[in-house]
Amino acid sequence: MKILPIIMCGGSGTRVWPESRESRPKQFIPLLGSRSTFQTAIETLTDPLFETPIVISNQDYRFLIAEQLQEIGRSAHIVLEPLRRDSGPAVAVGTELAMETDPKTIVAVLAADHTLRDRGGFIASCREAAAAAAGGHIVTLGIKPKEPATGYGYIKTGKAVVDNGTVLKVEAFVEKPDAPTAAAYVAAGHLWNAGNFFFRADIMEEELRRFAPAILEAACDALAKARRDLDFLLLDKEAFARAPKISIDYAVMEHTQRAAVVPADIGWSDVGTWAAVCELSQRDANGNSVRGHGVVMDARNVHIRSDENLTTVVGVDNVVVVTTEDAVLVLDRAHGDKVKQLVDRLKSENRREAFEHKRSHRPWGYYQSVDRGSRYHVKRIVVKPGARLSLQKHLHRAEHWIVVRGTAEVTRNDDVVLVHENESIYLPIGTIHRLANPGKIDLELIEVQTGSYLGEDDIVRLEDVYNRV
Amino acid sequence: MKILPIIMCGGSGTRVWPESRESRPKQFIPLLGSRSTFQTAIETLTDPLFETPIVISNQDYRFLIAEQLQEIGRSAHIVLEPLRRDSGPAVAVGTELAMETDPKTIVAVLAADHTLRDRGGFIASCREAAAAAAGGHIVTLGIKPKEPATGYGYIKTGKAVVDNGTVLKVEAFVEKPDAPTAAAYVAAGHLWNAGNFFFRADIMEEELRRFAPAILEAACDALAKARRDLDFLLLDKEAFARAPKISIDYAVMEHTQRAAVVPADIGWSDVGTWAAVCELSQRDANGNSVRGHGVVMDARNVHIRSDENLTTVVGVDNVVVVTTEDAVLVLDRAHGDKVKQLVDRLKSENRREAFEHKRSHRPWGYYQSVDRGSRYHVKRIVVKPGARLSLQKHLHRAEHWIVVRGTAEVTRNDDVVLVHENESIYLPIGTIHRLANPGKIDLELIEVQTGSYLGEDDIVRLEDVYNRV
Repeated sequence: MKILPIIMCGGSGTRVWPESRESRPKQFIPLLGSRSTFQTAIETLTDPLFETPIVISNQDYRFLIAEQLQEIGRSAHIVLEPLRRDSGPAVAVGTELAMETDPKTIVAVLAADHTLRDRGGFIASCREAAAAAAGGHIVTLGIKPKEPATGYGYIKTGKAVVDNGTVLKVEAFVEKPDAPTAAAYVAAGHLWNAGNFFFRADIMEEELRRFAPAILEAACDALAKARRDLDFLLLDKEAFARAPKISIDYAVMEHTQRAAVVPADIGWSDVGTWAAVCELSQRDANGNSVRGHGVVMDARNVHIRSDENLTTVVGVDNVVVVTTEDAVLVLDRAHGDKVKQLVDRLKSENRREAFEHKRSHRPWGYYQSVDRGSRYHVKRIVVKPGARLSLQKHLHRAEHWIVVRGTAEVTRNDDVVLVHENESIYLPIGTIHRLANPGKIDLELIEVQTGSYLGEDDIVRLEDVYNRV
Repeated sequence: MKILPIIMCGGSGTRVWPESRESRPKQFIPLLGSRSTFQTAIETLTDPLFETPIVISNQDYRFLIAEQLQEIGRSAHIVLEPLRRDSGPAVAVGTELAMETDPKTIVAVLAADHTLRDRGGFIASCREAAAAAAGGHIVTLGIKPKEPATGYGYIKTGKAVVDNGTVLKVEAFVEKPDAPTAAAYVAAGHLWNAGNFFFRADIMEEELRRFAPAILEAACDALAKARRDLDFLLLDKEAFARAPKISIDYAVMEHTQRAAVVPADIGWSDVGTWAAVCELSQRDANGNSVRGHGVVMDARNVHIRSDENLTTVVGVDNVVVVTTEDAVLVLDRAHGDKVKQLVDRLKSENRREAFEHKRSHRPWGYYQSVDRGSRYHVKRIVVKPGARLSLQKHLHRAEHWIVVRGTAEVTRNDDVVLVHENESIYLPIGTIHRLANPGKIDLELIEVQTGSYLGEDDIVRLEDVYNRV
């Protein structure tokens, strides 16, 4: 038996701001260790139990996904949503893709922004769930609660599906409770709903047709009209827009009679808040953990996360301090769930730090703003070996490029020249130009833009290997 | 009657790190408002009561002092100490300078790192103190305590110097007390010792000769052998080194019979800790104050200070957060006095952030590191109108300069060329070069250094208008 995993990673999770932002949400951040939760999820699926995964995400993240897969040397089929429609339509698309191969395909819908400590236990649970799914159930993993959490939905379990079996009937999915209710749920043996589902493709299609036909129809149509774009399958926008924006829980799971659950004790966490990240981090005798450059004095239960700058805490207990290149968060551990509210406020004030990082990832590499004045802007630009930017021109700015590592191939109007380390080139306003890295190592250059308008939107793309014209 | 003010500003105060560092200590930081405490001290002395002040400082700060004076359009005589010797020798030097004009000169020794709210009250107190000084007393300002502070020394007052006068005899100077003792002092009517002294030059010389002859001798010798260097008077190093390192309090004030005090209620603060800065800052209804880019959510009595980056605080009360371009401090307000300890620890770990800012001030302007890689370093360089760097060369690095504002005059081996906005110039390794700003506005340029060694000490200075060869 094989399982076809469908990884959903289109969320824009900002609860671990300022690390996560819309331009690089939680699932793509190395919250613990050196890999993102998306990457560890993909790596977990290298077990022979699984087929090559299908990744469903928002089209904004296509190059980020490709890059993160490349970093760990894994491949996946990537399906792109042209707009956000919650998990219901995504599951429908995954179901229909599985149908194309075999209606009896066992599909696992998995989240990309969770962690688990016990990989072996997880795979064993997957096997159990898949077996039950083969028998016609829609199976979820139910996590044995560590504490009466108020941040998760719960599953009220019923009798075993098969006499003496471990897979249980789901009596009800219940919403995130308040604290006393959560305590009652834990006492009653309810399980956490981790949002993973296992099912046979034909069964899910049947349930979708019964409970959410509009979703199924829109998903089928979006797939029929989808187009290949480089290595991505891009769903048709107009068709997909017709799908109601609704989670699979509301669309199907709360209505179906086929819901079952595999109780699992696998060290699962949704690392949904900084408090959860603290929990999972290695701490010293005072309960402090420091990632990056940090110093704690006279304080306990402090979590510092600081990439480049030095972050110091003196005399403040139970605090999380996250320092990025352009923003600092000082958060009481008990207020972890308020970060979303903070980010909403920053968004309403239209602060750039709420949406974007200083470093912007592109299919060809990245650029990062390093200095800015009223009439100039300095960027570090890194181009991957073999990659090339679009053929472009600017109407308001001139650019000076100084190569500090590798070799650049620069198209400048009708010429193509090589620029080597410690050489520079000048592109006056209006020059048609293109930057490429013909070499075997990263190309790094410092770009100094000068002009009266320096917005990113002053770009006329004439040709682009990444189809961004 | 005129007063000759002597401003002492050689301290290396780091208690408001990360804003203050050895390379730019507390007195030169705009802790409140837009001016440094040194600048506001100088401005207070524009009253006709005062002569042109003498500034005594460490030679490391000579260009900083000149720049800060220029910013506010004030002048002063600047005396430079070649090494740190505490306040005793500095007062002796000031006394001897005053003696040169007139032995009866009334001298006021003032600190550069204090603030006061009531300038009129201060000047009235100065008049009173000067009158008593003219009569042969050494007079200090005694501040009426706001609270039983443990961070200041106290003055035990005696009878009035003149019957029914307001100037009192000093019975004793007492050390910084513990909390219960401080409360007893306040109850007994003791005053804070603000470290300002008023005296006639001949009287102080007499007392120095009596109680600290080694200081007086070293000071006289250091002055006799001093040399003029640009606009500065540089004390002789060898002679000054012979002065014992001791405060004027220990050297003279605790021994003299001539000590008197003017009780003063002038809104004085030594802004010695971040807690004191909070006290003096404007706060909202929740007790929060934000300077720069900051957001506070669900918290009270928070003080944020953040120049460029966005700093956010969620759910943490009574905290001071200071974000600079390369370091963050998160400090409980009650732990303000521990910052010194933190900085000592950072120094012992030899962290750059303990000593220096990212921006380095030079007599010609400043430079600031904006990006750095293993084989490159990017700086923003700003040169003041009319200023010029030294004629120099480097053995390990080449430099690319892109002018982004103003006009540069660049000497390159035997040539002198003008480089205008949006033009660049290249200086290969070993080129003898000099940068100057011949224009009327600041010159700004981006420098990209490339090479295998990029330390600041790779510089051979051949000629320098600031005598740094």
